[in-house]
Amino acid sequence: MPSTPNHPLDEILHPKSIAVVGASDNPYSRGYGYTHHLLDYGFRGKIYPVNPRCKEILGLKTYTCLRDVPGAVDFVISCVPSSAVLEMLEDCAQKGVKGVHLYTARFSETGRPDAADLEQKVLAKARELGIRLIGPNCMGVYYPREGIAFAYGLPKEGGPVGFISQTGGGAAILVHIASMRGIGFSKVISYGNGLDLDESDYLDYFYQDPETEIILMYIEGVKDGRRFFKSLKRTAASKPVVIVKGGRGNAGSQATTSHTASLAGSITTWESAVAQAGGISVKNYDELADLAVSFRFIPPIRGTRVGISGGGGGPSVLAADECEEAGLDVISLPDAIREALKNRAPDIWDWIGNPTDVSILGGFGFTGLDMLKMMAENPEFDLLIGNMTEVPLAQETGTVSRFMAEVQEYIEIRKMRKKPMFVVIGEKSLNAPDYTHWRWKLTGDVRSALIAAGVPFFPTIDRGAKAVKKVIDYYRNKK
Amino acid sequence: MPSTPNHPLDEILHPKSIAVVGASDNPYSRGYGYTHHLLDYGFRGKIYPVNPRCKEILGLKTYTCLRDVPGAVDFVISCVPSSAVLEMLEDCAQKGVKGVHLYTARFSETGRPDAADLEQKVLAKARELGIRLIGPNCMGVYYPREGIAFAYGLPKEGGPVGFISQTGGGAAILVHIASMRGIGFSKVISYGNGLDLDESDYLDYFYQDPETEIILMYIEGVKDGRRFFKSLKRTAASKPVVIVKGGRGNAGSQATTSHTASLAGSITTWESAVAQAGGISVKNYDELADLAVSFRFIPPIRGTRVGISGGGGGPSVLAADECEEAGLDVISLPDAIREALKNRAPDIWDWIGNPTDVSILGGFGFTGLDMLKMMAENPEFDLLIGNMTEVPLAQETGTVSRFMAEVQEYIEIRKMRKKPMFVVIGEKSLNAPDYTHWRWKLTGDVRSALIAAGVPFFPTIDRGAKAVKKVIDYYRNKK
Repeated sequence: MPSTPNHPLDEILHPKSIAVVGASDNPYSRGYGYTHHLLDYGFRGKIYPVNPRCKEILGLKTYTCLRDVPGAVDFVISCVPSSAVLEMLEDCAQKGVKGVHLYTARFSETGRPDAADLEQKVLAKARELGIRLIGPNCMGVYYPREGIAFAYGLPKEGGPVGFISQTGGGAAILVHIASMRGIGFSKVISYGNGLDLDESDYLDYFYQDPETEIILMYIEGVKDGRRFFKSLKRTAASKPVVIVKGGRGNAGSQATTSHTASLAGSITTWESAVAQAGGISVKNYDELADLAVSFRFIPPIRGTRVGISGGGGGPSVLAADECEEAGLDVISLPDAIREALKNRAPDIWDWIGNPTDVSILGGFGFTGLDMLKMMAENPEFDLLIGNMTEVPLAQETGTVSRFMAEVQEYIEIRKMRKKPMFVVIGEKSLNAPDYTHWRWKLTGDVRSALIAAGVPFFPTIDRGAKAVKKVIDYYRNKK
Repeated sequence: MPSTPNHPLDEILHPKSIAVVGASDNPYSRGYGYTHHLLDYGFRGKIYPVNPRCKEILGLKTYTCLRDVPGAVDFVISCVPSSAVLEMLEDCAQKGVKGVHLYTARFSETGRPDAADLEQKVLAKARELGIRLIGPNCMGVYYPREGIAFAYGLPKEGGPVGFISQTGGGAAILVHIASMRGIGFSKVISYGNGLDLDESDYLDYFYQDPETEIILMYIEGVKDGRRFFKSLKRTAASKPVVIVKGGRGNAGSQATTSHTASLAGSITTWESAVAQAGGISVKNYDELADLAVSFRFIPPIRGTRVGISGGGGGPSVLAADECEEAGLDVISLPDAIREALKNRAPDIWDWIGNPTDVSILGGFGFTGLDMLKMMAENPEFDLLIGNMTEVPLAQETGTVSRFMAEVQEYIEIRKMRKKPMFVVIGEKSLNAPDYTHWRWKLTGDVRSALIAAGVPFFPTIDRGAKAVKKVIDYYRNKK
């Protein structure tokens, strides 16, 4: 396993033993969940549940207090109430604990002076004892290669994307929806109030981390702006950093205060500072996932000339509109292709354009995929889009084999490695009966086949075009 | 069945007999499809397939030519090649046909002078014979209450939404995705090149049509701008008209030429003319569906003050941001609610806000749904959002019952009829194994239950907020 020996997080994230203090046998509690996840995701070190009222949790011997645990403890996940944290930290010091994840909440984010005061005491105590803190008020660590996780149902395989998230529930959502697009994660850290280790520490760590190639962030506020933007600039020069700012408006920034006690500044100032440092701003989790997909599966592109094939008339027209609106150039077919079409599709050569409306090709022995391959060979295109649009409103017979054959062609074009390419396949609000309908299962088969072959896909042209334009801008600025 | 006796389309759309000229026994052909749809969707009149090479199609006696059909024919669906249309029109005149839908394409949209010339001859012939044309180069009519349809898998039940679409494939897609959100259609007309009846004719018809309460349009270009905007102004004063313009940019407007031979103008001019006439501009099919859902299920609203409940910290913060960015006001909790909270949730009353972050409520006997009900009773809110966010990353036990109970509460709030409300429940790019996973089937059950109770839902806060803001603007302008 690669490691980054210079950063304090390195030791914390590779523990040989973990204690869950405030573990529980109540399956609806987080104390149960964290213990369950260590077993379920395959943590290879020792696991010590701590709870004075239980003898055994999930088949693991359970200890009355942390001091009773035999031998050293490297990492602690704390699910105890905030009032119990100071004492627990003393116990941690006794056991040689290096890092504590405080799932424990109800500190400064409550807006109450006594809770904020307690939080400062926790920080002082941790500093005094030489213990580093993740949190409080956060979901902590998802590190699939180490078998550490903070939610049910996340992938057990890792990948090259790191996520630094001030929010917890949102972190699990992002991991989940990105994994459905073929993204695996190196480490995800939900850090809540960021009392000790903060966004700049985590960014510095991901900068050094050889397991992380692409960095996503959800941030509500930064503690030390100068330090953060310096760290961002250094990091963005070698790895893409994509950031959602939570609390962009009045109501949102009020909400951040009660969420993670962050003070948000002007969004315009923020976004221009991010851009100046080479970071990429997006608005929400879907866009974070879109950018992760783009950086993960699309090679560096510096040009905006796009070739589009697929879809009938209306969808083709709107594909052109939405690509242009996103800042891509939907160029006319190059002369070389028009000449070649005279031979390949003599009856309709002068009618075919970019985007290629496949509804006019029927019966001429020339397909939208043939067109995409011609575009792949032509130097005037920088990027290709295979537009499968929505689910097909046709009969099952024929349609399934046609769609899966089309997917094989996209995979073949991808293997040619001539051009960056993405596919568009719609995702829709399925109703109860749709889950057993061949039409929707077909779109699932399409996506799974594309993921297995490393072909990126987006649910709409609009989202794909906007994401890829940000990637182009990133590589252009870097150059 | 209601009717609009003053419009020529009324008679055309209520035929007692339909002939499919160019019907076919090849299940992959449109000539087969149209015949199949008349049977499948339950057309109650006589169906006459016409094809010189078949004796029977789908169990129906098939005629060598239209003139051989016994008795009168009211409506013809033409799947013959363009070269055969002039002769077919002569036959139509003999049989007393009032309207012809020309699925037949390859006229002016090919960009070829001879094809454009033939198109003009077809128009002249139809006018001479007193036959009205839908098309050419289009999918024609979907009128579920009459049992007429142009694609497989569309709903067989009708509803109050009409759709006038210059494109065909896109029309089927829109019907399908809107129906998955609970929308039923009065009539959908895909009219392609609009040679005889054009967008203004269809709009005039939908204006009069008592079955149509909400009008959607996909338009690439209008034939007579003055007439169209006059018709739009009159219609929008009594029914919402939501329009996607295809061909907004350079590439898109080039694409419209080869799609429906339309000449697109400047999009800025277009959109301001639409707004001035009281119409609503949107960008794509998803937004059309979002507006259909909003007008169908949300009562008239004139205020922008929104109350939001649901989701954890990050999703709550982003919900506030996206609502504000869409032009809604995420107001602070009114004093009356804050006072009431002192009794209802004494431990956390000062920490609860709008949006209500439900992750802080655990264990205090007060839920996000309780909050939404308080908001429903308070006069300072104009609109409520129940934010179920994405699929739950929890255990199956407990989660399913909790989600379905939450849905029942939304339904109850809806029944209170105190405030307009919508729910947000994510739709994601499902992979092959997801179709049998309880987590995704649960979201399907949630959506089906919401649809059955008439509760509107959107896949993201962003889309819901943007759509509803357009609805608010519409009612404000109307007033």
